Amino acid sequence: MRFSLLDLADRFQLKLVGEAAIEVDRMEPLVSASAGALSFLSQKKFQPLLLKSAASAVILKPEWAEPAPMAVLLSDNPYLSYAKIARLLHPVPVPAAGIHASAMIDPKAQIDPRASIAAQVVIEAGAVVEAGCVIGAGSYLGERVYLAENVCLNPHVTIHHDCHLGKRVKVQSGTVIGAEGFGYANEEGRWLAIPQIGAVQIGDDVEIGANTTIDRGALEDTVIEEGVILDNLIQVAHNVHIGAFSAIAGCVGIAGSAKIGRHCTVGGAAGILGHLEIADYVNITAKSLVTSSIGEAGTYSSGTPLQPNRLWKRNRVRFSQLDSMARRLAALEKNRH
Amino acid sequence: MRFSLLDLADRFQLKLVGEAAIEVDRMEPLVSASAGALSFLSQKKFQPLLLKSAASAVILKPEWAEPAPMAVLLSDNPYLSYAKIARLLHPVPVPAAGIHASAMIDPKAQIDPRASIAAQVVIEAGAVVEAGCVIGAGSYLGERVYLAENVCLNPHVTIHHDCHLGKRVKVQSGTVIGAEGFGYANEEGRWLAIPQIGAVQIGDDVEIGANTTIDRGALEDTVIEEGVILDNLIQVAHNVHIGAFSAIAGCVGIAGSAKIGRHCTVGGAAGILGHLEIADYVNITAKSLVTSSIGEAGTYSSGTPLQPNRLWKRNRVRFSQLDSMARRLAALEKNRH
Amino acid sequence: MRFSLLDLADRFQLKLVGEAAIEVDRMEPLVSASAGALSFLSQKKFQPLLLKSAASAVILKPEWAEPAPMAVLLSDNPYLSYAKIARLLHPVPVPAAGIHASAMIDPKAQIDPRASIAAQVVIEAGAVVEAGCVIGAGSYLGERVYLAENVCLNPHVTIHHDCHLGKRVKVQSGTVIGAEGFGYANEEGRWLAIPQIGAVQIGDDVEIGANTTIDRGALEDTVIEEGVILDNLIQVAHNVHIGAFSAIAGCVGIAGSAKIGRHCTVGGAAGILGHLEIADYVNITAKSLVTSSIGEAGTYSSGTPLQPNRLWKRNRVRFSQLDSMARRLAALEKNRH
Repeated sequence: MRFSLLDLADRFQLKLVGEAAIEVDRMEPLVSASAGALSFLSQKKFQPLLLKSAASAVILKPEWAEPAPMAVLLSDNPYLSYAKIARLLHPVPVPAAGIHASAMIDPKAQIDPRASIAAQVVIEAGAVVEAGCVIGAGSYLGERVYLAENVCLNPHVTIHHDCHLGKRVKVQSGTVIGAEGFGYANEEGRWLAIPQIGAVQIGDDVEIGANTTIDRGALEDTVIEEGVILDNLIQVAHNVHIGAFSAIAGCVGIAGSAKIGRHCTVGGAAGILGHLEIADYVNITAKSLVTSSIGEAGTYSSGTPLQPNRLWKRNRVRFSQLDSMARRLAALEKNRH
Repeated sequence: MRFSLLDLADRFQLKLVGEAAIEVDRMEPLVSASAGALSFLSQKKFQPLLLKSAASAVILKPEWAEPAPMAVLLSDNPYLSYAKIARLLHPVPVPAAGIHASAMIDPKAQIDPRASIAAQVVIEAGAVVEAGCVIGAGSYLGERVYLAENVCLNPHVTIHHDCHLGKRVKVQSGTVIGAEGFGYANEEGRWLAIPQIGAVQIGDDVEIGANTTIDRGALEDTVIEEGVILDNLIQVAHNVHIGAFSAIAGCVGIAGSAKIGRHCTVGGAAGILGHLEIADYVNITAKSLVTSSIGEAGTYSSGTPLQPNRLWKRNRVRFSQLDSMARRLAALEKNRH
Repeated sequence: MRFSLLDLADRFQLKLVGEAAIEVDRMEPLVSASAGALSFLSQKKFQPLLLKSAASAVILKPEWAEPAPMAVLLSDNPYLSYAKIARLLHPVPVPAAGIHASAMIDPKAQIDPRASIAAQVVIEAGAVVEAGCVIGAGSYLGERVYLAENVCLNPHVTIHHDCHLGKRVKVQSGTVIGAEGFGYANEEGRWLAIPQIGAVQIGDDVEIGANTTIDRGALEDTVIEEGVILDNLIQVAHNVHIGAFSAIAGCVGIAGSAKIGRHCTVGGAAGILGHLEIADYVNITAKSLVTSSIGEAGTYSSGTPLQPNRLWKRNRVRFSQLDSMARRLAALEKNRH
């Protein structure tokens, strides 16, 4: 599909500087773009690359347009405009509706005829798959799983019994939703598993990465509200509640019954302990550990700086002496007076 | 299934205060419970919730019973009593024995007729599946895998050749047991893979979460002793040995040949380096890194506190100056005398 | 297969001290070895074990040979010699070529007749599988995936459309290559997914562990150069570039567009932020967080030491006061003069 710059400017309310009839059919990065491609400039520091780019047009901020030798589409948020135009130029191919002959669908499951079920899929009794759903090869839906309209599961996704996924939820491969949470009582040294009888409720437009795990609740449900995005290899323990539109980066671990607010961001490999509450609009930076509730919006961090190992070793050992150092410092101060 | 409070008090040796004939058929949380439900109070601080709860009965400590408007079951360990009664009220449904038509079982595998093998399962030659085992859809058993009585594998579990799982072992979806460990020799800059000819030995009553990986040993076996519980997304490297009844939380990484004692707990996202030994009854707190052996029982930690990013940045940069600060402090002290 | 020590000494250019006709057929650890086994000594500290070992022969450094009661093969690098001889004694069994009846191969895929395709495999249109490839049970190849000669995928591997794997690439179970990266633009609080139209390029001889995820690129490809080794549960985000022969340990997270040099090593559970560059021959120690580019070879670290929890708590709270301590120390110093 090809679009003229005039058409794009019109659809996305951008100002066009250049020839309206120029057509583009794909997005490419500034450096490697060739004729027929649209590119974008997301940061001022890359401005010099404009002169070397063979892109037919570039999306950029009005104040960055000066040296551009090609047509430009002016946007106050070039990255967002790129996202929108990329979705137009590169639509996700939708497989044909229907059920592959090798899929094993329980007769008591309800599959909308407008859904697409790939090879080797297994769907248990009582599951409901609404119109427009796409279930990738080898995925598994347990009993009474409910998939609302246009859910997309990539190959090898596992959804356990009684979990609900909202409209347009997308799940990457290898992810497990509704496994039994890590709930045990200790009896004289032995661990006794507690039945995990809650499920997982996932709101509309949630997107979930690959090999992530979202455990079912112990008594009540684990809840992911609408519009949340989760990256790969994230652990969401039982009875966690993630507020709408929050974004969680890869390798994050969220312990049981933690409640994360709306519009939060959690950086890669951060950890959040259980049974605590995080307010809306909180940002946690990468690899930080949240050990108590956070009542106020803002950015929070823990950790030490990266250093050459030789220097770090010296500082590291001093960390073990910090309390002593603080006391000695106070003693000196007292002594001075 | 419904049980009278008299019956429950009797089975679990609890003291009943209230009407013996009252019946319950499910566990529910205190706040959202309705009539017919049993609930529990695990901490004193939630005592005020008793007055608002519609549960038919509540398990709690004798000293917390005062304001309860409903029948109560008195327990010195309400959480443990909850676990036990929940297992009675909410038994795990057991699928019918037999082999699904779509499963691919090598003729040289031995499947007990009392085992249940779901759709799309693949079982290789020489594997043995004992009575009462439940193998979930799409799971894979390599050659000569041995599953003792009543092993339960959820869908999409992978067990590689020659691994042994003890009685009642339970494995959540997406977990891989017996992949080849990360063993390489370096030859002039290139990595040469070392054959991983050990297997994995898993004791009775071990429970393993979702998307966890337990690598096979290099020469000898990786060993998980009886009663160990492992959460999701844990990495257990080759030749690790985990002692009986230890509990490992999600996202933990355990490097090669580490030996963890019995009755240890490892908090979420902690790391344990290789070739070290941890005594029995050691607790490692979340996100700590264990870099050398621990000879004594107790709780161990590393890491820095979470702070607002603006404050943290100032302290973080000072960490790089810690050794210098310590020397300057000592100089001041010396100077004073 | 049995080999005489003479034969082994000859093949691997080792000096033999002992009877040339002695035969061995397997590698075993020094402590548990029995007659007929070859063992090795990798560190001087284990020398005393030689006297107790029943191994028929041992590989060791010339200077460690003295007390050995058995035949020895002298090597300047016993670990490397062990690796090479183990590969001879314990070859990986190669399954017969051919396609299992239950595999679902699109008629437009090209499968070399010398490849082996196991049960339940799904291969989409346009995929190419070259000679000698082994595809484990239940694995999935998307459209136009290209597997060069002798690629080995263990069971339950997912390779998404358009990804290329070089010769002899080996992938352990549960790994997902080419899932869509975590790329979103924010529009008034809502996350808008950006099409991920790049793919993943993996060079020759790369080895990848279990349940690892390597995301496809946003506009250009994610690249893993030749000879890289990746352990289990690693997150490689979109547009990451890993230079040849680098080794990444388990649970590492690498954020988008990070560029790692050649011959680097990254310790377990380390984190690397996005859009930064790491030089060749850089080593990052376990659980460190790399927050900016590293221009020079060397070893780098972050983190604090493990301590008994009681002591750690005191030092941990002082970390929050570090900047204040530094200022007070400076004030004292100034005051002194």
